[in-house]
Amino acid sequence: MAVRVGILGATGAVGQRLIQLLDPHPDFEIAALTASDSSAGKSYREAAKWRVDTPIPADVADMTVGATDPDDVPGDVDLLFSSLPSSVGAAVEPAFCEAGYVVSSNSSNARMADDVPLVIPEVNADHLDLLEVQRDDRGWDGALVKNPNCSTITFVPTLAALEQFGLERVHVATLQAVSGAGYDGVTSMEIIDNAIPHIGSEEEKLETESKKLLGDFDGAELAQHDVSVSASCNRIPTLDGHLENVWLETAETLSPVDAADALSSYSFDDVDLRSSPDPLIHVFEDLERPQPRLDRTLGDGMAISVGGLQESTFGLQYNCLAHNTIRGAAGASVLNGELLLENGYL
Amino acid sequence: MAVRVGILGATGAVGQRLIQLLDPHPDFEIAALTASDSSAGKSYREAAKWRVDTPIPADVADMTVGATDPDDVPGDVDLLFSSLPSSVGAAVEPAFCEAGYVVSSNSSNARMADDVPLVIPEVNADHLDLLEVQRDDRGWDGALVKNPNCSTITFVPTLAALEQFGLERVHVATLQAVSGAGYDGVTSMEIIDNAIPHIGSEEEKLETESKKLLGDFDGAELAQHDVSVSASCNRIPTLDGHLENVWLETAETLSPVDAADALSSYSFDDVDLRSSPDPLIHVFEDLERPQPRLDRTLGDGMAISVGGLQESTFGLQYNCLAHNTIRGAAGASVLNGELLLENGYL
Amino acid sequence: MAVRVGILGATGAVGQRLIQLLDPHPDFEIAALTASDSSAGKSYREAAKWRVDTPIPADVADMTVGATDPDDVPGDVDLLFSSLPSSVGAAVEPAFCEAGYVVSSNSSNARMADDVPLVIPEVNADHLDLLEVQRDDRGWDGALVKNPNCSTITFVPTLAALEQFGLERVHVATLQAVSGAGYDGVTSMEIIDNAIPHIGSEEEKLETESKKLLGDFDGAELAQHDVSVSASCNRIPTLDGHLENVWLETAETLSPVDAADALSSYSFDDVDLRSSPDPLIHVFEDLERPQPRLDRTLGDGMAISVGGLQESTFGLQYNCLAHNTIRGAAGASVLNGELLLENGYL
Amino acid sequence: MAVRVGILGATGAVGQRLIQLLDPHPDFEIAALTASDSSAGKSYREAAKWRVDTPIPADVADMTVGATDPDDVPGDVDLLFSSLPSSVGAAVEPAFCEAGYVVSSNSSNARMADDVPLVIPEVNADHLDLLEVQRDDRGWDGALVKNPNCSTITFVPTLAALEQFGLERVHVATLQAVSGAGYDGVTSMEIIDNAIPHIGSEEEKLETESKKLLGDFDGAELAQHDVSVSASCNRIPTLDGHLENVWLETAETLSPVDAADALSSYSFDDVDLRSSPDPLIHVFEDLERPQPRLDRTLGDGMAISVGGLQESTFGLQYNCLAHNTIRGAAGASVLNGELLLENGYL
Repeated sequence: MAVRVGILGATGAVGQRLIQLLDPHPDFEIAALTASDSSAGKSYREAAKWRVDTPIPADVADMTVGATDPDDVPGDVDLLFSSLPSSVGAAVEPAFCEAGYVVSSNSSNARMADDVPLVIPEVNADHLDLLEVQRDDRGWDGALVKNPNCSTITFVPTLAALEQFGLERVHVATLQAVSGAGYDGVTSMEIIDNAIPHIGSEEEKLETESKKLLGDFDGAELAQHDVSVSASCNRIPTLDGHLENVWLETAETLSPVDAADALSSYSFDDVDLRSSPDPLIHVFEDLERPQPRLDRTLGDGMAISVGGLQESTFGLQYNCLAHNTIRGAAGASVLNGELLLENGYL
Repeated sequence: MAVRVGILGATGAVGQRLIQLLDPHPDFEIAALTASDSSAGKSYREAAKWRVDTPIPADVADMTVGATDPDDVPGDVDLLFSSLPSSVGAAVEPAFCEAGYVVSSNSSNARMADDVPLVIPEVNADHLDLLEVQRDDRGWDGALVKNPNCSTITFVPTLAALEQFGLERVHVATLQAVSGAGYDGVTSMEIIDNAIPHIGSEEEKLETESKKLLGDFDGAELAQHDVSVSASCNRIPTLDGHLENVWLETAETLSPVDAADALSSYSFDDVDLRSSPDPLIHVFEDLERPQPRLDRTLGDGMAISVGGLQESTFGLQYNCLAHNTIRGAAGASVLNGELLLENGYL
Repeated sequence: MAVRVGILGATGAVGQRLIQLLDPHPDFEIAALTASDSSAGKSYREAAKWRVDTPIPADVADMTVGATDPDDVPGDVDLLFSSLPSSVGAAVEPAFCEAGYVVSSNSSNARMADDVPLVIPEVNADHLDLLEVQRDDRGWDGALVKNPNCSTITFVPTLAALEQFGLERVHVATLQAVSGAGYDGVTSMEIIDNAIPHIGSEEEKLETESKKLLGDFDGAELAQHDVSVSASCNRIPTLDGHLENVWLETAETLSPVDAADALSSYSFDDVDLRSSPDPLIHVFEDLERPQPRLDRTLGDGMAISVGGLQESTFGLQYNCLAHNTIRGAAGASVLNGELLLENGYL
Repeated sequence: MAVRVGILGATGAVGQRLIQLLDPHPDFEIAALTASDSSAGKSYREAAKWRVDTPIPADVADMTVGATDPDDVPGDVDLLFSSLPSSVGAAVEPAFCEAGYVVSSNSSNARMADDVPLVIPEVNADHLDLLEVQRDDRGWDGALVKNPNCSTITFVPTLAALEQFGLERVHVATLQAVSGAGYDGVTSMEIIDNAIPHIGSEEEKLETESKKLLGDFDGAELAQHDVSVSASCNRIPTLDGHLENVWLETAETLSPVDAADALSSYSFDDVDLRSSPDPLIHVFEDLERPQPRLDRTLGDGMAISVGGLQESTFGLQYNCLAHNTIRGAAGASVLNGELLLENGYL
C-alpha cells in the first residue's frame, strides 16, 4: 500500500518536478499540497503556473492547495517532501517534525546542522541513522533529512567513487542551468548572450556540503571528510543540467583509465532503491561529452555523467553532469523518501 | 603617413573584425585583402558574408580580393595581418616573410616556435626583439610575430599584474563565446540550451602559451616561466566575450585587496600604443561581474575585466573577461602591428 | 511480421529521427541504411554524429551504412524512407522506384508533380491512390509518396478541420526552429540573439503545397483547392517546434467557439494509423499557448496544437504549432509508410 | 542653454535608456530622477540595477532619486520624460501636467485619449497642436504628449511612407525582443528554446494606435485613418529589436520597386530634429534582412529597416525592424521632447 505523502511548496519549479515524479510512483500517493498563503484554498491548477513538459496529472490538478502549516496537512500523511525557500523552510520544517511528520527536504536550511542527515543514498546511506541522534536531541516524533544542493550532488558521487585513491584537493568550476534558480530566478535580460559568475552562496555550499557527505558517521557523531574543496560557480543560458569541470588531486597516483573503471563500476552494496539508476555513473570516451542537452536525461534524469578524463598538470581532470532539478533536487528528495521507507522510518 | 597594410584571410570572423578596426586606424591604410582561391577576383562585398554589427566600410567593400600568395600582394604593402586557418598559416606565412613582408599573425601555427615572438604588448613587449634572432636564423627580410589564443589573452595580463607575488600554480576554467570558433564553427543545434566541454586543443594552448608569454628573454634566448597552469575549456551559448574562473596560488600571501590594487594599477612603462586602453584592467567590486554581455566592450573591447576576487581554499580566486574577437584576436594583432611600427620594424 | 525498411540519408537530422521512431515500431524493421559515399562502408556509429536525445539503438549503431544506390540496398527491403537533400532525392528516388522500391519521402523534390501523391494521412489519405496514375505514367513497380514541408504540415490540418466553413484567404507567419534547416543549417553566430526573416523557398512551399493537400482527387486527376495562401517565414532561436500565426477568412462566418469545436473534434473516418494521435488537434484556452518548448511533444510529437483563437479585424485569427522534425518530417514519413502498409502497397 | 529635464521611472529598462540618451544630449540636462517610494532617497547608483551596455554617467550615478510626486521635483525642471508602468502613469501624469510640467511619456495610459497627441515626429508632427485642445479642455499649464508602443513604432513609419498608394488592409505579425517587457518581464525559463504567442494587449495597441497616428488633425479634432489593421504578436528569445512581417493591400497597385523607392526616399518636410536619422528608413535588397542583431543599431538605434519587399498573394509583403527600447521607447520620447522644444512648448 502506498505511503501518503505531501509536498510543501508544491507550486515552484522543484515542487512541479516532485509532482511529475511522485504521481506515477508506486510507493507514494500524493495526498496533500501546500504553498504560500496567497495560493491556499485554490485548486492546484489555478495556483500553479505549470511549466514542466508533461501535462499536470489530472487528479493533482483538482486537489486543493493548503497553507504550509502542520494544522493544514491531513494527519494520515506520513511523509512530506519540502522544496520551500530556505527562509520559510527554516521557520516551518521543525514545526512539521515536531508535529510528527517525516520531512525529506530539498531546502538549504539546516543542511549543515550536526544532527541533520545530509544524504545522497548512493554515497552515504548510513548517515540516515543520524536521525536517532536527532530524535534524542530534539524530542521529535517526526524527522528531518536533507539532500544537498544541486551543484553538490553533481560531483560528490564521482568523489565517492574515487575515494579509495585518497581524496586530497578538489577544484570545481560549475556551468549551471537557469532552472536551478527557480522559475523566476534568472530573467531573460540577465542571461541571453551572457554568463553570470559567482552564484550567491553556491560556492560555499559545494565546499562544505561535500565534506559532510563524504564524512564518517560512527553511530554517534559525524566526522567531516578532510578533503579540501574550492568552487567557482557560474550561471549560463541553459535550461536544465549542471556541467562541472573538476580537478582532483589524490594521495595515490590515479590514471584516467583507473578512474574510468572506478567510476563506471561504482556500486553501493546496501542500497537498492527504485529511483537509483544502474549504472549510477556513465563514463563517456568522447572528450566533448557530457553535454547538458544531450545527456541530462540519462537514467531518467537520475544518472551522473562523466567525460573528459585526462591527466592534468595537477592530478586528474574531468567533467561531470547531472540534471539539476531531477537528480539535483526533486529526484534527490524522492530518493531520500525511498531510503526512509526502506529503513523503516515511515 | 599611414603604413600600407594587407589582411590575409580577410573574409572570416577575425578578418572582418580586422577591417572594422583598421579602416578608421590613423597609422594604417588597408591596401590589400586576400582570401581563399574561391574568393580571389571578387569584390570584398561579394566575397564576404559580412556579419559585424557596423556596415562594411565603403572603400573596402569595393576592393578586389586577391589570392593568399606573395605574388598577389602589392609590393608597397609593408605589414600583413594574418587570420588564416592554422594549416594555411603554417604553409604560407613563411613564404610572405621570406618575400620581405612583416606579418602580425593571429593564426595558431608557430606560436610556440623558439624564434617566433608571441606577444601581448602590455605583458612582454620586450620579446619582440626575438625577431633579431628570427632573422638571423631564417635569413628573412620580413618577420613573423604572433599574438596568443583568445582564451590565453584573457587571463595572462592578470598573471602579469600579479607576478610580483610569485606565481606558482594556476587553475583556469573558461566559458567561451561561440565567435571564438569562427562564423561556422559552432552550429545552433550544438549550442542552444547546451554547453560543450573540452574545446579541441584549447586547453593545451592556455597551458603552454602562458608560460612563454610570462617568460624571460635575455636578448638571445627565451626562458619559459615556471608557473604551472592547468586549463579546462568550455563553449557556451554566448556570442562574444570569454569569461574565465581563475585560482592562483602564489609564493607570497596575496589578499584580495592587494590583488585588486595590483590589477587596477598595473602599468607597463615602455609601451604607449594607440589601441591599448587605460586602464588595461578594470576591477569590479560587484562579485557577479564581469559578465560577457555587459563588460566585453570596455575600453573599446581591448580592456580586461576582473571581479569576484576572494580568498579561496587554495590561494586567490577571481574571474576575468575579455572580448575574444577584439582583445583576443583582431585587436591583439593590430596592437602588435602598432608595436612593430613603434619599434621600427616597418 | 514486420516489413523490412531502409532509410535513405540516414545520418542527417531527419534520418536520426527516423531511426528513433522506426527502431521501436512494431510494423517496421530497419534493414538498410544509406548515406553519402563518404559514409558508405562505415558502421552507423562511426558515420553519424548522433544528436537525438535518446541513445543510438544498439543494433542500428552496428549496422553498416551503404551507398544511396539501388544496387546497394538488399532486395528484400520493401519500403524506403527518404530524407535526402532535394537535389540528391531528385536524382536517385526515381531510380529506386524503377527498381521496385516503395519510397516514402520527406525530400522536397517532386512534391508538386501531378502524379506524385503529397499526403498527410489525416488530411488527404485518399490522394494515395494517385499512385495508380503514377505507376501507369511511369511504368514503375515501386512508388513514390511525399509528405509536405514541416511548416506546411503545421497549419494545413487546421485548415482541413475548418474547410466546412469555406476557406477563402489565409495569411500565415511562421516562427521556425533551427532544426528545420538540418544540423548544420543555421550557425550559432547567425541566430543567437537574432531572428532571420524570409527563409529561402519556404514561403512558396506553404503557398503551393497547401492547395495541393486540400485539393480534390477524382481517381484520375487532382484539382487543387482554390484557397489563397500567403506566407512569411522566419527562423528563430528555438531548437524544435514551428509556431505559426494564422489569419483565416472563410465564406461562412466562423466564431472562435465554433472553430475550437471543429478543431478539437476533427476526425478523418477512414484512417486509423498507429502514429496518428487522438486527438490530432489540441485546442488551448490559454491565449499564450501553444509554445514550442512546452507543447511540441504532445501526442509523442505527432499532435498539432492550436491556441489564441479570436475574432480578428479580418476573419478568424489563431496560432498553431507542431514538432517540425517529428510531425513535420520523420514522423510524417513514417505515417505515410503506415498508410502505404494499410492500403496494400507493401 | 539646455532645458532642465526629469525622468519619471528612472530605474527601469526604458528609464536607463533615457539616461543613456539624455546624458550626452546638448539640448537637455538631467536635473531630476524619480522612482518608486522604495528607491526614493537613495543615490541612483544604489537604486538602479544598471543593465545598459555603457557605464552609468558619473554625475547621474550620484544624483538622489526622488519620489514620483510633483512636490518632489524641482520647480525649474521644464520637461519630464515618463516611463512609468501604465497604472502609475495614469495616476500621476495628470498631476504633473496640472502642476505645470510638460510630460513626454512612453507609458501606455491615455495614448488613445481624444485630446492627447500620440506622436512620431516623422509621421504626424502636426498632431502636436492637439495640445492646445488639451490645455483648453483640462485647464493645464503643463501638457501631456505620448509616443506609441514599441511594436507600433516599428511599422507605422513604413505605412506613412506608402500612404500615397492608398492604405487599405494591413496584416502584421511581430517577433518581439524580451527587453520590450522590461528587465523582469520575461524569465529565462519562459523564453530560452521557446517563443510565446499573443503578447498581452499588444495586438490591440498596434491596431488602434496605428489608426490614430495616421489620422488627420484639422486643428480641432483628430479623425482616425480608415486603414484596417490586424496584428499577431509574439515574444522570441532576442534581446533588442522587434522584427515584423507586414502584408499591405493598397488602393493603387504597388510594386516592390515603387515601394522601395517611396520608403528609402521618405521625408517629412517640417521636421528636422537632432535624434531623427537621415535616412529614416533603410531598405535592404537582401531578402534575409533586416535582422535584429545586425540591424537594430542603424541610425544610432533610431532608424527603421525594411527588407523582403515582394509581391504577395495579397498585395505587398515586407519585413521591418526597429530597436524597441531606443526608437521604440526612450528615443521616441526624447524625439518628442525635441519636437516640443522646437515648437515652443518649453
